[in-house]
Amino acid sequence: MFEKEVYSARRKALLERLSGEKGIALFIGNVDAPCQYKDNSYKWRQDSSWLYLFGIDEPRLAATIDLETGEETLYGDDFSLDDIIWMGPMPSVRCLADRAGIARTAPYDAIGAAIQGRRVHFLPTSRYATRLKLGALLGIDPELTTSQGKAGCPLASTPLVKALISLRLVKDSREIERIEAACNLGYEMHTAARRGIRPGRIEQEIVGAMEGVTLAKGWGTSFPTILTQHGEIFHCHSHEMPVEPGKLMVVDAGAETNDHYASDFTRTYPTAGRFSPRQRDIYQTVYECNELAFNMIKPGVQYRDVHLAVAAHMLDNLRQLGLVQGDVDGMVADGLAGLFMPHGLGHNMGLDVHDMEDLGENLVGYDDDQTRSPQLGLGSLRMARRLQPGNVLTDEPGIYFIPALIEQWKQDGTDGGRVNYAKLAGYYDFGGIRLEDDVLVTPEGARRLGQKRLPIAPDEVEAAMREDQQ
Amino acid sequence: MFEKEVYSARRKALLERLSGEKGIALFIGNVDAPCQYKDNSYKWRQDSSWLYLFGIDEPRLAATIDLETGEETLYGDDFSLDDIIWMGPMPSVRCLADRAGIARTAPYDAIGAAIQGRRVHFLPTSRYATRLKLGALLGIDPELTTSQGKAGCPLASTPLVKALISLRLVKDSREIERIEAACNLGYEMHTAARRGIRPGRIEQEIVGAMEGVTLAKGWGTSFPTILTQHGEIFHCHSHEMPVEPGKLMVVDAGAETNDHYASDFTRTYPTAGRFSPRQRDIYQTVYECNELAFNMIKPGVQYRDVHLAVAAHMLDNLRQLGLVQGDVDGMVADGLAGLFMPHGLGHNMGLDVHDMEDLGENLVGYDDDQTRSPQLGLGSLRMARRLQPGNVLTDEPGIYFIPALIEQWKQDGTDGGRVNYAKLAGYYDFGGIRLEDDVLVTPEGARRLGQKRLPIAPDEVEAAMREDQQ
Repeated sequence: MFEKEVYSARRKALLERLSGEKGIALFIGNVDAPCQYKDNSYKWRQDSSWLYLFGIDEPRLAATIDLETGEETLYGDDFSLDDIIWMGPMPSVRCLADRAGIARTAPYDAIGAAIQGRRVHFLPTSRYATRLKLGALLGIDPELTTSQGKAGCPLASTPLVKALISLRLVKDSREIERIEAACNLGYEMHTAARRGIRPGRIEQEIVGAMEGVTLAKGWGTSFPTILTQHGEIFHCHSHEMPVEPGKLMVVDAGAETNDHYASDFTRTYPTAGRFSPRQRDIYQTVYECNELAFNMIKPGVQYRDVHLAVAAHMLDNLRQLGLVQGDVDGMVADGLAGLFMPHGLGHNMGLDVHDMEDLGENLVGYDDDQTRSPQLGLGSLRMARRLQPGNVLTDEPGIYFIPALIEQWKQDGTDGGRVNYAKLAGYYDFGGIRLEDDVLVTPEGARRLGQKRLPIAPDEVEAAMREDQQ
Repeated sequence: MFEKEVYSARRKALLERLSGEKGIALFIGNVDAPCQYKDNSYKWRQDSSWLYLFGIDEPRLAATIDLETGEETLYGDDFSLDDIIWMGPMPSVRCLADRAGIARTAPYDAIGAAIQGRRVHFLPTSRYATRLKLGALLGIDPELTTSQGKAGCPLASTPLVKALISLRLVKDSREIERIEAACNLGYEMHTAARRGIRPGRIEQEIVGAMEGVTLAKGWGTSFPTILTQHGEIFHCHSHEMPVEPGKLMVVDAGAETNDHYASDFTRTYPTAGRFSPRQRDIYQTVYECNELAFNMIKPGVQYRDVHLAVAAHMLDNLRQLGLVQGDVDGMVADGLAGLFMPHGLGHNMGLDVHDMEDLGENLVGYDDDQTRSPQLGLGSLRMARRLQPGNVLTDEPGIYFIPALIEQWKQDGTDGGRVNYAKLAGYYDFGGIRLEDDVLVTPEGARRLGQKRLPIAPDEVEAAMREDQQ
């Protein structure tokens, strides 16, 4: 937790951006999320917007900010002696409020009376417990307190959501220092993973070694680890396969610090320690796309345009490999890149690895004058905005050969005759490649976060793997 | 997952125990539990009762068993091509039903129509998503679908809960084999922890190394790891302290296998590698209590009586140390042991580390003719029942010096003049000691689970720590 002045200043900035709004802003902190039963909960994780505005990393708290008077109240209950026997000495609610610079405190059950008769501004949430709580407090269907797909939540307060996003989008030096700490821990995780890639080992053993590294120094992983020889399956969380020589191992994982800032890196390794010529061709293309994107990042550039430039470079290279044919600009316009990269180039990152995603993808990632494309790939772009200094985002191009998707395009003629399906059929066992860095937008351009960069150029990767084996 | 015949047989046994009941039994499997946002969920964990009856380790499924006709239905939705791009080829609901031996399938949203107008028997749940789902399906307050304290859930079906408990309490050879696998993994975890105890290391580094071991081979930990030099704080999940020589480190942790069976062990280590005389006195007492309990375990014995025998032995030893005075039987009857061991001797263990706790503590742990004591310590006993062959339970005595609790007893005179508070004051910096094994009740008596037993006798512990340092 930072000093209390940090949180007071953030809330003051929020209030200023909401000047003229009537009513009261209500923030519900997280409670423990039971896994098997009440006393066996998942690892405690506070809500990220709560952490940003109040910093208090304790369960079962709520807060209000009166948008008309600026009055701030923290709601919570002090612990009983029984609690203290089980949990040790705990700070009082008054003490927690002091840490966050909040003047007033009240019992948790006083929230209802405090919002009675007021226009209530709340943030959407995916947490089921908070949905239930908001539903009960506001007398609305709990399902309507959560973001409905990418568009956000119709009953949440758009002014509040937009004001908070505008603040959280721009990281200050304190936050950048913490994100960089997460990146350094991510470097250690990925190094452990790369060293674990030995033919015959079960993927899960590598995951365990890697996650042990982040648990030893941080909160844990910033999202469920992807470590798979089926890189073409994006959310493959199965880790049962033994490492087979000749495959590509996609490792997409990040660390979360004890104070809850995230990192997120992807590297792809030839399990044999060396790329085959076919693997190297595709890898080189993805690597060039990663570099191209990084070199374009600077204030004022729309990240959507960076995505499209990457799509063009990728299609141009794939054309040279004979996998597609035709005019590159036309292919980009028609969304052909989506067949090979059916995801976006990157996302914001901060207290959440997909920063603020609970608030609604479009509100977070799109400027008011931008609309989201319906195309495969570009349509999944989570961050399209004009870049500003202090933005932190990922640069993660990838190429995948997804048999089910290719077969569907072939059947539907989606490609307008520009895909060489006969040649593509030879790639059905290829898997996928993704290469991801975390990037800070600076006043001058961009800086990759983390003290050291994970090996990424094809020769560097092979050299590192040779060294690992020694 | 076992063969489908296992699950069919369990459901048949359940149905037989419910013969004469009217209506339909409804089982809601778990959905993913969002942590920060919808696509960043906590690690997937199926509901344990669902795993026991159906075995299918996939989210967003439900099932009904018609108690009048025996008809079984699995509710779920097949995946779209979009899902398959992100998640890889997925089995159909029909295929999942076959694996569990279920004849009928239906879409997920058909549950409502299937239970319309029927008496619905459901199990209580702590999962907020399931509370919401049951609330919506049954038109009841979601808060009333969860166990209210130890007494269970008033709206859930007591006949269904009791029938299921009677089955899950007795583990068959397949389950024992899996629990033993969890115990073997727990042995590896604890060995890694013991080896990590070096002055100056941060507790969290030891936790990370330990949890990496279980993530490499199993689902993860079976509950949040306790690793603390403040053993007197039962649920101390803070791991910020460096290891200080002269302290006692309580390590209470267990593994969960990939098929979700649990282990749960506690050992307490002198951080200096050797016990001080004062530490050794208390340790020896806890060790004797652990042995005493194990030697009493056999079919027909009430585990509550084992708890009381442990309390008597503990008080007798503490009397010899001059910490209490008076007649041991009288002290046991008046609950004096609760000052030193304010928890129960053990709990059932299986698919949950506190097995079935979501179904209601009293229904799980107490025979119909037993009532729960209101005393501190004995009142926290989770397993009091007459033991049966196939029960798996923990044997975990402990002695703690909890300054806040001692001060309260002193002030209230709770001890009836039998505690030597002057002498006790010298133990305020002692911490606590707990020693826990996992035990199977056999037809003849008891067997400790796990191929090897973690060092536990004081000399064994010191010898193992000497070896670790070499």
